[in-house]
Amino acid sequence: MGSDAETLRPCRWTGRALALLDQRALPEEVRWIECADAGTVARAIREMVVRGAPAIGIGAAYGVVLAARRAWRESAGRWREAMEDELADLAAARPTAVNLAWALERMRAAARRASGDPAEALLREAQAIHEEDIAANRRMGGLGAKLIDGRCDVLTHCNTGSLATGGYGTALGVIRSAWRQGKVESVYADETRPWLQGARLTAWELVQDGIPVRLLADGAASFLLGRGAVGWVVVGADRVAANGDVANKIGTYALAVSARHHGVGFMVVAPSSTIDPDCPDGGAIPIEERSPTELLQLGAQRVAAPGAGAWNPVFDVTPASLVDALVTERGVLLRPDRARIRELLAASPAA
Amino acid sequence: MGSDAETLRPCRWTGRALALLDQRALPEEVRWIECADAGTVARAIREMVVRGAPAIGIGAAYGVVLAARRAWRESAGRWREAMEDELADLAAARPTAVNLAWALERMRAAARRASGDPAEALLREAQAIHEEDIAANRRMGGLGAKLIDGRCDVLTHCNTGSLATGGYGTALGVIRSAWRQGKVESVYADETRPWLQGARLTAWELVQDGIPVRLLADGAASFLLGRGAVGWVVVGADRVAANGDVANKIGTYALAVSARHHGVGFMVVAPSSTIDPDCPDGGAIPIEERSPTELLQLGAQRVAAPGAGAWNPVFDVTPASLVDALVTERGVLLRPDRARIRELLAASPAA
Repeated sequence: MGSDAETLRPCRWTGRALALLDQRALPEEVRWIECADAGTVARAIREMVVRGAPAIGIGAAYGVVLAARRAWRESAGRWREAMEDELADLAAARPTAVNLAWALERMRAAARRASGDPAEALLREAQAIHEEDIAANRRMGGLGAKLIDGRCDVLTHCNTGSLATGGYGTALGVIRSAWRQGKVESVYADETRPWLQGARLTAWELVQDGIPVRLLADGAASFLLGRGAVGWVVVGADRVAANGDVANKIGTYALAVSARHHGVGFMVVAPSSTIDPDCPDGGAIPIEERSPTELLQLGAQRVAAPGAGAWNPVFDVTPASLVDALVTERGVLLRPDRARIRELLAASPAA
Repeated sequence: MGSDAETLRPCRWTGRALALLDQRALPEEVRWIECADAGTVARAIREMVVRGAPAIGIGAAYGVVLAARRAWRESAGRWREAMEDELADLAAARPTAVNLAWALERMRAAARRASGDPAEALLREAQAIHEEDIAANRRMGGLGAKLIDGRCDVLTHCNTGSLATGGYGTALGVIRSAWRQGKVESVYADETRPWLQGARLTAWELVQDGIPVRLLADGAASFLLGRGAVGWVVVGADRVAANGDVANKIGTYALAVSARHHGVGFMVVAPSSTIDPDCPDGGAIPIEERSPTELLQLGAQRVAAPGAGAWNPVFDVTPASLVDALVTERGVLLRPDRARIRELLAASPAA
């Protein structure tokens, strides 16, 4: 993962199945789960074996390969219709990240073009989605790093690294690139309750790269920003609305409010597949609420008194007005808005 | 705890020792720890058997009773000097809450006045500190509730209830009083990482009072405030500087920044013993940093990869400019500042 050529990949095609690195077991245990059918992929997405908007999209794309393989085998004459239930299952696995719907739409288009046994063509498309994501991350890494002038600490939230993407990472990709350029002194990583992706995943990735990382309680981030060492808050996104509003891991909005209060830059890093032109603004983004037990328990141990409830939205929405820079593989938008985003999506993808 | 006359008391004098409700074991287990000497009290404060600024002060006051009893027994001729090491041990137990130093100073003054065996006089003083704290809380409850007009949700942080005080609570006392007046629809309680005082203690207290409570991840509070149902953020304090800056549990400053951003009221509730006139501003308040393992582990289980560090300040400082109301038993200061605080402290205590 340390060299520029190599990156950890949380999704691997084994030749006959999709192997997913089980992110619930990290960093304690490096365990792979083999998914031989689309239903298993959908369950893995639902249960957060694989998480992170781009990685979910990539996992779902391989899931379509598995669905098409089964459908062709069992009902070659009507294989497209025969895989619809599985595609719907994949689409419903998690609601907020739009990369899931985006990847499924791209796979559907490939399926429409396929003739004969679709296995090869669909696998090529899934692999293209995967490779393009890694290439987009590397490009965003360079573009985002350019925004960081001078050497500073950076603060990030959740996990946006190799584990959350095809490889290399979005926000963590920018941090990796900036670190290599000597622009990052050290990384502060929110632990990111309730799933602790920062503690379990981001710290693990950064330690492997030899980048100094300090965890902090999510509530401590404002106090940290007030101390002046952090130059940029760098986060990913699960969906960017057409007006530039950003849905991302719960806690992101608090960082954006605090970054603006302290005059610290707030950078969102996401491939253009995360932009949803059909979603007019953040209010239209479906926000997943997960089980209250994620807050009422700590692992299997009950923490809160019986009778207490919990409110557990796992994403929030940051208005475009608080975003200083939106970094995509197609270019950087400073102070993104509806017009700039339309223009970005209309331009042809960068080479 | 539900009636106005009764309140849970986390510190109890048994006649020969101080019994402390072990808050590390709640809500799983209601376990009392008996402290027969001052050293055991100091350790209990250090290890958070008892926590919350007023409760720490009360515990320390009883610790002085125990120190004086031993000193008188062993060296009656010079008992004041003979207890100095134990008082220093108590004073050093935790750095941020000024109520500790305040209670010790009050006990020292009582010791200077004592003649003969000081046990009775010092016990009376410790009990006075305890009873006055409960009375102050009840008075603050009424004063703070008056500020809440109309029925709304409230958001609180950490635990500021009976467990954190002599009884009834500071911020949670205001919430209790406002609830009884029908002004509170429901309570949102930050879980409060890393010690989860909100999940473990505040939820437990509110469930016992029949007040509806929902926990949320600390990072979710800004998203909640943006939804508009919360009328007031109500928090306690561990030290208020002479200019009105407030040290309180880590995460409080983030709430204050966010409350201001959303136009939601931000109320700090603390007895005047929490105000430190010798501390010019928040920059002079010592901020305790606890072990990184509180973030690197979850209970006994390592969470973060070996090699990751952590930054674990357990308090932060909110500037007076973000405080809409400071509620003390001597009265309410809207937009507290140095002059208003000086005036408040100069006035004689309320009856």
